Amino acid sequence: MSGQDQDQDQAFIEQAIELARRAIDEQAGGPFGAVIVLNGRAIGQGNNRVLGTCDPTAHAEVVAIRQACRETGQFHLPEATLYTSCEPCPMCLFATHWARIPRIVFAANREDAAEIGFSDAEQYQYLRMPVSAFDMHQIARDAARQAMRDWAASAGSRLY
Amino acid sequence: MSGQDQDQDQAFIEQAIELARRAIDEQAGGPFGAVIVLNGRAIGQGNNRVLGTCDPTAHAEVVAIRQACRETGQFHLPEATLYTSCEPCPMCLFATHWARIPRIVFAANREDAAEIGFSDAEQYQYLRMPVSAFDMHQIARDAARQAMRDWAASAGSRLY
Repeated sequence: MSGQDQDQDQAFIEQAIELARRAIDEQAGGPFGAVIVLNGRAIGQGNNRVLGTCDPTAHAEVVAIRQACRETGQFHLPEATLYTSCEPCPMCLFATHWARIPRIVFAANREDAAEIGFSDAEQYQYLRMPVSAFDMHQIARDAARQAMRDWAASAGSRLY
Repeated sequence: MSGQDQDQDQAFIEQAIELARRAIDEQAGGPFGAVIVLNGRAIGQGNNRVLGTCDPTAHAEVVAIRQACRETGQFHLPEATLYTSCEPCPMCLFATHWARIPRIVFAANREDAAEIGFSDAEQYQYLRMPVSAFDMHQIARDAARQAMRDWAASAGSRLY
């Protein structure tokens, strides 16, 4: 991977983590953010809105995928990358698969989600990992974990 | 199960299959329909709208879950049943799990979906089945399969 690609990964994962930090102020949902990037440009982004929209499917990745597809008029994005502040839960993994997005860069992981009370683990027991359809990379874990811990310590944090 | 419960299952699976049949006229997406039922009442319903809304996550089950949660103001529906014209794909299974819907009644299955060109099979290879978190039942397979075949033979059928 070139230095330019690494710089791009770093920049967009930071954007995803910044979206995750919105959870503290907005109280729309959990501390998770995602960005979809195509040809170096963010074409979709989102933070978790399960509580704000009363929609259990409104995870950051799903919100970002919906926006990216609407923006481009394409329901398949085979050249895109998903940047997400935390390892996608199984629902989001398969949503990404339906969108034909082949590359995923994530920061925190399922253990970090469990640490703040989210139990994606129950779903992961039904998965055979790794889901080899994806090219997956983990970077910037500490920054994302800190955002999650700050959320957990904040007054408005609420599990779902 | 009482005769009344069986009658209810039959009535709502027929409603889900009727929604699936809309695909032929509406051309909004694949021939799949779903209904969420709580206390004998349909609180959410949907047909697949992947093409119509350019949203790869707009499967019938997800559309129905979103409506049911909006309708009730609850993002968890632990007393509800999901009726769906075809076995839920992995994304929809986990969406149902996040909505805490414990019971699923489906009609056609993944082989029937494959027969008309949908390749959920690629995703199923990553799942350990059965997903024991759910109480799952299959009824009315033939009626749903016929709706799917009619769609496949229609002029507007389009895969995604």
